Amino acid sequence: MARPPRSRYARLVAALPATVPFVPPEAFERQAGRPLKLRIGANESAFGPSPKALAAMRAAAGQVNWYCDPEGFVLREALARRHNVARDNIVLGAGIDDLLGLIVRAFCDPGDRVVMSFGAYPTFAFHVRGFGATLVTPPYRRDRNDPEALAAAALRRKARLVYLSNPDNPTGSWLTAGDLERLVAGLPAGAVLVLDEAYSDFAPADAIPALDAEDARVIRLRTFSKAYGMAGARIGYAVAPAELVRTFDKIRHHFGVNRVAQEGALAAIGDTDFIAGVVAEVESGRREYGETAARLGFAALQSATNFVALDIGTTERAKACLARLLSEENCFVRMAGVAPLNRCIRVTVGTKAERQGFAQALSRVAPGLPA
Amino acid sequence: MARPPRSRYARLVAALPATVPFVPPEAFERQAGRPLKLRIGANESAFGPSPKALAAMRAAAGQVNWYCDPEGFVLREALARRHNVARDNIVLGAGIDDLLGLIVRAFCDPGDRVVMSFGAYPTFAFHVRGFGATLVTPPYRRDRNDPEALAAAALRRKARLVYLSNPDNPTGSWLTAGDLERLVAGLPAGAVLVLDEAYSDFAPADAIPALDAEDARVIRLRTFSKAYGMAGARIGYAVAPAELVRTFDKIRHHFGVNRVAQEGALAAIGDTDFIAGVVAEVESGRREYGETAARLGFAALQSATNFVALDIGTTERAKACLARLLSEENCFVRMAGVAPLNRCIRVTVGTKAERQGFAQALSRVAPGLPA
Repeated sequence: MARPPRSRYARLVAALPATVPFVPPEAFERQAGRPLKLRIGANESAFGPSPKALAAMRAAAGQVNWYCDPEGFVLREALARRHNVARDNIVLGAGIDDLLGLIVRAFCDPGDRVVMSFGAYPTFAFHVRGFGATLVTPPYRRDRNDPEALAAAALRRKARLVYLSNPDNPTGSWLTAGDLERLVAGLPAGAVLVLDEAYSDFAPADAIPALDAEDARVIRLRTFSKAYGMAGARIGYAVAPAELVRTFDKIRHHFGVNRVAQEGALAAIGDTDFIAGVVAEVESGRREYGETAARLGFAALQSATNFVALDIGTTERAKACLARLLSEENCFVRMAGVAPLNRCIRVTVGTKAERQGFAQALSRVAPGLPA
Repeated sequence: MARPPRSRYARLVAALPATVPFVPPEAFERQAGRPLKLRIGANESAFGPSPKALAAMRAAAGQVNWYCDPEGFVLREALARRHNVARDNIVLGAGIDDLLGLIVRAFCDPGDRVVMSFGAYPTFAFHVRGFGATLVTPPYRRDRNDPEALAAAALRRKARLVYLSNPDNPTGSWLTAGDLERLVAGLPAGAVLVLDEAYSDFAPADAIPALDAEDARVIRLRTFSKAYGMAGARIGYAVAPAELVRTFDKIRHHFGVNRVAQEGALAAIGDTDFIAGVVAEVESGRREYGETAARLGFAALQSATNFVALDIGTTERAKACLARLLSEENCFVRMAGVAPLNRCIRVTVGTKAERQGFAQALSRVAPGLPA
């Protein structure tokens, strides 16, 4: 059979669907023609950046005519000290999303298999599809990542990568360090665990494995977008073997991590008191959301993140709840797109006032949900 | 013959050399253990961002806990008005470098041919190699891009892309709108001109072609890194057919253009007086560099950018000049890596004081250069 004529685009790109991972809160505001009252759907920090980070970013803005240091030397030194690794084990990225794209590109030829739980991070799936790799998606088990199923799928399908967010998004659940070590030990030869620790600042100590940065089987990802309150600045990093960091240097945007973000991140990691305060407040907020849910007859999934998944019972009810929160209460939350998590709405921990506002909004919406 | 065993990396990435496009000024400072006195090598603006942009960035830093609008709606509306095109003809990127990567990825399968002048923008070459495409590099002619040679090479090699910076880096030269229109008309079917207009704010009006945004044969790239003084913020955009903008949506980092940069850019395009002042000052500075060069017996290439290439005579002399400026004068400038431009040093127009400092530095260094 004759091959179809080639489009003007690259084959991989021509074959991609025209979908985007997320509709932003700004799009809802534009549709409704009014600002949101509660923006608690994207797991952004309600507590802003550290005042020290803010001051550093405002100072850096005055020198924004200069490109950033493409080697990110000073920040990588500071991060290396923090993690007790070498500077050569750290690579900066414009957020974890940027690093996820680089990882898929670095490891996957078209057709290679990549494992993650069904319904896990859509942006990772976006990159996997974008480079023509094939997603293998074992289901969540009891609303948690199932490490045995992930390892088994990786073995069976000879996967190159296994992606896991720990603590997890969208469930909020977490695996222990022991679970993760067993998962790594069970991977097929050459496979790599992409360990997305975006929410690790909120996690109990036993969820954070003591990894060897030179272990070729693991890439650890961290971000300033969550507890550090700098999502809009775009900065994250990977801790990985030096050889892998050098491989990223072959393909990354060398000047891509903006100057303001680098300076802000450097100041932020020095402000441990601020982060401890955010983490404590988020813990209170999760408790409050749990109480709100219980009062209205919903279960709250246990969470070690800055959000809580509230179990609304069925996907029909969850969709109705989300839609009514948006249209009647001007409240933006999100929900997972697929089963079994699509019976839940996912609510970011806001400020005290935002939590109270959400409790009121949900209590007005809940009685009218479908049976 | 047996195929060699596959590395743990993707084939394209495993095959890439471990080179990076540029050594940053910060690396020289670290090597020397002292700060540079003159940082005039990376074509950064000496005149900073507009005060309005600076105020907007400082305000935006306070809301950096929120992700950016991934649709970049407000900024794209403003840019569309500016260019008299539709919002759907604009795609934002984290600088032109980001967009160049997307363009190569969108259009090129491994082995596809891409044309640019030999010695033109190294970061574009980095992306071309990174996606496995093949560079075809006709030489500069009389220190200018040669549109006939570029079109002929594109035709002969059935190229997918032709890259051209206009005004050009590293020469500072420019083609006229008529030259560009003839180049586009001469491209093979399906090929696209990647028109990098990073320096267009400094250019004479006749260097800027009146393009139809829906012309499938051209992608026009603009940045806030040069005249707008926001290189460290990371923001640029493309003007392109709506269908191509939708294709970028299949692969771009949707949250990748940081919030501070978007707000800064929006304010910056409203401050036309500031930009006019920068452009006038840069014009004076180019004249001064020309006078300095003439006084010392060097020719200055005619430039429509914020830098001037000074012809030092031979590559040996240019290298010596660059090295002595750095080691003896703490002055960072750059030079092209290949002939025929590697007989020149490339000097960014600094402030009045920086220009005087450079004139003094060069006059001390010049007498000792090899014959």
